[in-house]
Amino acid sequence: MPYTYKHPRPALTVDCVVFGLDDEDLKVLLIERGGQPFAGAWALPGGFVEMDETLDVAAQRELSEETGLGKVFLEQLFTFGDPGRDPRGRTVSVAYHALVNIRDHRVRAATDARDVNWFAVAERPPLAFDHDKILEMAHQRLKGKVRYQPIGFELLPKRFTLRQLQHLYETLLQRTFDKRNFRRKVMSMGFVEETGELQREVAHRAARLYRFDEKKYKRFLQSGYLFEL
Amino acid sequence: MPYTYKHPRPALTVDCVVFGLDDEDLKVLLIERGGQPFAGAWALPGGFVEMDETLDVAAQRELSEETGLGKVFLEQLFTFGDPGRDPRGRTVSVAYHALVNIRDHRVRAATDARDVNWFAVAERPPLAFDHDKILEMAHQRLKGKVRYQPIGFELLPKRFTLRQLQHLYETLLQRTFDKRNFRRKVMSMGFVEETGELQREVAHRAARLYRFDEKKYKRFLQSGYLFEL
Repeated sequence: MPYTYKHPRPALTVDCVVFGLDDEDLKVLLIERGGQPFAGAWALPGGFVEMDETLDVAAQRELSEETGLGKVFLEQLFTFGDPGRDPRGRTVSVAYHALVNIRDHRVRAATDARDVNWFAVAERPPLAFDHDKILEMAHQRLKGKVRYQPIGFELLPKRFTLRQLQHLYETLLQRTFDKRNFRRKVMSMGFVEETGELQREVAHRAARLYRFDEKKYKRFLQSGYLFEL
Repeated sequence: MPYTYKHPRPALTVDCVVFGLDDEDLKVLLIERGGQPFAGAWALPGGFVEMDETLDVAAQRELSEETGLGKVFLEQLFTFGDPGRDPRGRTVSVAYHALVNIRDHRVRAATDARDVNWFAVAERPPLAFDHDKILEMAHQRLKGKVRYQPIGFELLPKRFTLRQLQHLYETLLQRTFDKRNFRRKVMSMGFVEETGELQREVAHRAARLYRFDEKKYKRFLQSGYLFEL
């Protein structure tokens, strides 16, 4: 059953940039396209918006259908609409992004995706469509946010060492920090506190364990104070 | 000539939130709708995206067609796509925003707009569609940016008094600042400098004139340092 309109309309899609952290790297979730165009190429998960769903729901649905990823906190990033960005004809795509802990999620390819995998952002294959541009913008946005907002704490275990926290920031920002400066900054934020416990069952000297105080964190955000690494 | 597609497609529009500053208020540029739906209601300027233009160009074109406003620095804000937001059927709108000096621009209604006017943001009429929601998000974004970035300096005269600068911030944020604290913060940013000149032809005591050093401002932005009012 064809659909007819008085004026031409672009097609509307959503695309999802899901960043994942593991112990080594900042990664991004990509699918291998099963169909044309760009069959066999890697791309961001995504697809066409249904007429009766919101954009947020479309993004969540496409992500879950193609990669098996459960519900994640997807945030709208930017809408990409250059006339030549899709060889099938004018297609406008609303891009979303998220940051998850890779350990917490299983992925498996389905529907339009032939395969699915996490790739280190810096070592990914070239992507279909303008997806490299979308990924690049999402990466810039992530790095911008991380510098001024304590994000990513929810990706750590409940009790963590300052070394783990530093590693999180070093991975997100792809740079190294001076250990003492980093610790001083983190402690001055006021919402990371010692648990009084030490790491257990480690070969090296057991480090102190810290936790993240959500109430103090919320107060910190409300105060409008920003920290800078 | 009708356009036929295998799958249904939403219509795609752009809407523009143009904030304007004059000596009193933070204002927003609205048009009175000439046609249905919402004929006679006030709304954000905007309209349908043409198939061969980018989203940025569509926003600039619709703004200029309906309000006569020349080229302004429009930035993409967010895409609104709830299924029920337009009584004509599913319509997804990419919203843009800008901040201009009202003195620098003439407006006149044309095409789909019966009238055009600046309204104080706080005293505007209720808007068509979900435009109140779009305006609200643009206003929040503006207030968020103003707090951490020195924006709006380009809206001042080349040489300005600190009183004018304070007034700019008070208008943008709709609050008052302590005069001494405000001046101390502004001077500590390092890119506002004295010209050595005084105001002329004023009835009250002539105030010192300052200017904005763009080179130092760029260095300030690159340093990643944020100020907070």
